[in-house]
Amino acid sequence: MPELAYLNGEIMPIDQARVPVEDRGYQFGDAVYEYLASYRGRLFALEAHLDRLENSLGALSFPPISRDLVRDAIMTTFSAAAIDRAGVYLQISRGVAPRNHAFPDQAPPQIVVTVRHAPEPPETYVRNGIRAITLTDIRWRRCDIKTVLLLPNVLAKQQALDAGAQDAIFVGDNGVVREGTSSNLFICKGGRLTTHPLTPNILPGITRAVLIDICLKEGIEVDEAFFDRQALLAADEVFLSGTVTEVLPVVEIDGEAIGNGSPGPVARQLLTRLEKRAGGKD
Amino acid sequence: MPELAYLNGEIMPIDQARVPVEDRGYQFGDAVYEYLASYRGRLFALEAHLDRLENSLGALSFPPISRDLVRDAIMTTFSAAAIDRAGVYLQISRGVAPRNHAFPDQAPPQIVVTVRHAPEPPETYVRNGIRAITLTDIRWRRCDIKTVLLLPNVLAKQQALDAGAQDAIFVGDNGVVREGTSSNLFICKGGRLTTHPLTPNILPGITRAVLIDICLKEGIEVDEAFFDRQALLAADEVFLSGTVTEVLPVVEIDGEAIGNGSPGPVARQLLTRLEKRAGGKD
Repeated sequence: MPELAYLNGEIMPIDQARVPVEDRGYQFGDAVYEYLASYRGRLFALEAHLDRLENSLGALSFPPISRDLVRDAIMTTFSAAAIDRAGVYLQISRGVAPRNHAFPDQAPPQIVVTVRHAPEPPETYVRNGIRAITLTDIRWRRCDIKTVLLLPNVLAKQQALDAGAQDAIFVGDNGVVREGTSSNLFICKGGRLTTHPLTPNILPGITRAVLIDICLKEGIEVDEAFFDRQALLAADEVFLSGTVTEVLPVVEIDGEAIGNGSPGPVARQLLTRLEKRAGGKD
Repeated sequence: MPELAYLNGEIMPIDQARVPVEDRGYQFGDAVYEYLASYRGRLFALEAHLDRLENSLGALSFPPISRDLVRDAIMTTFSAAAIDRAGVYLQISRGVAPRNHAFPDQAPPQIVVTVRHAPEPPETYVRNGIRAITLTDIRWRRCDIKTVLLLPNVLAKQQALDAGAQDAIFVGDNGVVREGTSSNLFICKGGRLTTHPLTPNILPGITRAVLIDICLKEGIEVDEAFFDRQALLAADEVFLSGTVTEVLPVVEIDGEAIGNGSPGPVARQLLTRLEKRAGGKD
């Protein structure tokens, strides 16, 4: 069960996978990515990730890239690694060319895949919930496109850690609560969920969509609507959602307890249903 | 006079310089850069670029990196390439580590330098001026830090080209005119210059600072002050400034002629002074 990389058709150990310094992903952040997880040896929601990838590529006017080629890159690497509970990272950059802002004329996109053991959130986080801080969102205005422009997310995550919390929650200038640094966010009040609607300011999360679908089937009402920090702090439950994050309760925000300061029943129920739908962990 | 790269202490042909796919510059845009130009075999404003680099590194809480090491990396590569009129690109990323947003514990920063022949703006651009379009600035809010989060700049530049112009000018939501996609911007009205003050919304350009200093000595008044698109269009002259750009007149914006639609005397005077100060081209 080796951790492996794929680079433009070849499989190799991750530390041997290297890209030219004039890869536009490196010099301009001109690249998109996806992150998938497997459960018991099966990739979860692969086609949904490929759909989103196509949206990202289209939004950035990348040249056409065969969906079959990308799927094959992912599956070949995943199969070779043979890791049951894997985190699969896919990155596609606009290609390699002497540095110049304008799109290059002839530069085939670079496709990179890495397959590693999935980085599980610590068991205590899942069991006890995490602490978060709110921060003004300083990211660019197209966070609906899944690009590698993640430095603001990196800085926010680190700021949270330095403050003794585990994650940060982005809030717009207008006071609207958006999402976490690598996850979407839901609040629950009186048994009813609310999450930020799909706009250019948040990532259209795959797990977010799966959870909304689960809620539909479970009879839990979900509003895709704006809400502010006051509503966030007044919620019965707050949780983050994402491929790695799954459903992660947030029990304290900016030093204030959420609900009774413990993970709530709705988050627990949704996590169970999500893992069931994904095929279950080992 | 070969074009060369430097990668963590070694000099090599540019196409052989490769970085690991888990370089944080590649996966997160967690990297800063500088771009220098040489005139007649001498790098212009090296120490000013190193000052700005240190500011960028500090703003992102990079671990300490020896200024002498960075200067040596630049000078060694530049000397080996022996290109009189060179463009020198320096990029420092936070290092290589398995993908995780938080800063890595033990990951020495990666230092990359490339030295290429300087990409001169076409002679007709300098002689006749360029056309530009204005676009809403959708970049992140720390454009004062010179990071590789350049995808919005790439998209804006390409949008300008697709519209038959040569560059785009970013305008804030409040209507304030900021800068070009890879340059600062000055307007001239009644012999007096205005340029956006140093805030987190623009790059503190080296050429911008040099031009302000030249103006001081030439008795040309410069205001570092906000101005809107209306003032931009009503200017006698508009020009961009930058290491590659030098002083580049903009003679048409959003289809409207600036002044009489030709490069003006102030831009011409400043370009002459700048090149004189830089040591002159061949």
